[in-house]
Amino acid sequence: MHPDLLTRVLSLLPPPQPEEATRPELAHFHAMLRDYPQRGGKGIRSALLLASARAHGARPGTPAWEGALWLAAGLELFQNWVLIHDDIEDDSEERRGQPALHRLHGVPLAINAGDALHAYMWAAVHRAGVPGGMEEFLAMIHRTAEGQHLDLSWVESGEWALTGADYLEMVRLKTAHYTVVVPLRLGALSAGHPPDERLTLAGLKLGAAFQIRDDVLNLLGDAAQYGKEIGGDLLEGKRTLIVLHWLETAPADQKALFLEQMARPRADKDADAVAQIHRWLLESGSVTHAQAHADAEAREGLALLEEALAEAPDPQAARELLDTVRGLATREA
Amino acid sequence: MHPDLLTRVLSLLPPPQPEEATRPELAHFHAMLRDYPQRGGKGIRSALLLASARAHGARPGTPAWEGALWLAAGLELFQNWVLIHDDIEDDSEERRGQPALHRLHGVPLAINAGDALHAYMWAAVHRAGVPGGMEEFLAMIHRTAEGQHLDLSWVESGEWALTGADYLEMVRLKTAHYTVVVPLRLGALSAGHPPDERLTLAGLKLGAAFQIRDDVLNLLGDAAQYGKEIGGDLLEGKRTLIVLHWLETAPADQKALFLEQMARPRADKDADAVAQIHRWLLESGSVTHAQAHADAEAREGLALLEEALAEAPDPQAARELLDTVRGLATREA
Repeated sequence: MHPDLLTRVLSLLPPPQPEEATRPELAHFHAMLRDYPQRGGKGIRSALLLASARAHGARPGTPAWEGALWLAAGLELFQNWVLIHDDIEDDSEERRGQPALHRLHGVPLAINAGDALHAYMWAAVHRAGVPGGMEEFLAMIHRTAEGQHLDLSWVESGEWALTGADYLEMVRLKTAHYTVVVPLRLGALSAGHPPDERLTLAGLKLGAAFQIRDDVLNLLGDAAQYGKEIGGDLLEGKRTLIVLHWLETAPADQKALFLEQMARPRADKDADAVAQIHRWLLESGSVTHAQAHADAEAREGLALLEEALAEAPDPQAARELLDTVRGLATREA
Repeated sequence: MHPDLLTRVLSLLPPPQPEEATRPELAHFHAMLRDYPQRGGKGIRSALLLASARAHGARPGTPAWEGALWLAAGLELFQNWVLIHDDIEDDSEERRGQPALHRLHGVPLAINAGDALHAYMWAAVHRAGVPGGMEEFLAMIHRTAEGQHLDLSWVESGEWALTGADYLEMVRLKTAHYTVVVPLRLGALSAGHPPDERLTLAGLKLGAAFQIRDDVLNLLGDAAQYGKEIGGDLLEGKRTLIVLHWLETAPADQKALFLEQMARPRADKDADAVAQIHRWLLESGSVTHAQAHADAEAREGLALLEEALAEAPDPQAARELLDTVRGLATREA
């Protein structure tokens, strides 16, 4: 996240205080609120929002730009409270190289801190004062929660009889809205423009492309560059386009071993068996298939975005936005 | 909750749809969102808000009244999402006579449903369009989450070296703001009046009085009338004014048995020992002490509220609000 944006995020939260100024328990609570934001993050979503705002004519130093900055702070707060709750829901061990919040403080305190951070997100949206901004955030949370429900309910019920279309519906809901659709639309709104409907269509395709790229990197990325555990999705039993495609034609014995391992909790999975499944996936052609699908969605999304920005008030900034998006779709980490 | 208000709450949520119109998983998710609101609730907070709005001159049928109704719907949504998360945090078994949401669907899906319902609360606040309403809800959530953190962190760390003042600070944060302070203030705001500061002071005292009354009823109430398990607070290891007062002068052997039982998870507590502690508490005079404190807070709170409403635009409605508050402070269930 950009340091100026982090400053803005932290300015909304209760500040650190001298020991005698507050109860130690409350100082502890307020430190929990600052924890995830201070661990840093790539800030992809806020960067897209600000690039879209510039393309739509919001110039640094103007009230429109101030509005965009507060909305960007709101997106970062969204990301942080969602991650606190996601990490509990997925029982993740780490986040950004440190133990997940509930591993440090227990589930009850972490749920409560996520709820409080959720409210601070709305403070940022309110502060932005951008007409239509509130509605965008509401729609974003509703879609993201629906996608999260799909994903979690498949894990809960051990459902693997899913198609690529099921995966894409889940990913559009869970990832595409908050990662691309809403950042692009908020950029337009903060510059005073009603969002072109092609921004939404482009964002759905680009969001799916980004997530598939992430799934691919999770299997064959460079651990140091990627920043997460390679193969972690397999250990967590994530439904991905790669795995669902592979399951369609996998030999019966491979499929049986896969389903048997996936039915186990993470701690009980056999490391050798998972490594074997990992190799089968890499050899199967399903990674190539998924990457080809991601490339096609990225191409179509970029073409739509280019059309939507053809008359953009700031053509130079529009080109920069397109370059940023292109870079994300082909990233190595 | 008043049936008209429930209709308004449900109108904000995704409606039930014919089976073929949506994915079964999403229909399941949307049913989870409607579950707690449909179980009914006393609707104390929304009733206080509407009574305060009337006293401050908002008349049914006017835009001000519409604003008050949407804010009241927002308060009910607040109560419902908080209860979903509270029930996880306290590992409660039941809510309003049925299994808690996470007992029905597991913790991950229940956290996610609570988050979605939280966002729908903001849709109600936004729909109300009452200037200052958003700020009240933000402050309410921040204070409630701070109080919840105090309570949960004492449970987490097994802390019993607490005074009555600690308890009162926790209860003012955790209960008084959302139960009384904010409903009274929102009523004024929806009628277009800046809230009199005495509403806040009155609400803090009345909120503490209501919670202590609830703690007392939990120990000596009539189970059928009270609607919750008598002695449930002891089984959950809740810090109450009654218990903290008793601990100050309890005989060493009684105190030792108490602390030994409280250090155990609920399932491992000894029913006979807890029943014995329950009798000691009833015989100790600490229930009487707590009730006397509640009565004093209620008297002072009512006096402040009467002062604050002395010039209320609708004196008849102001008297009704005072009667409602008086009834709550002396309730038997």
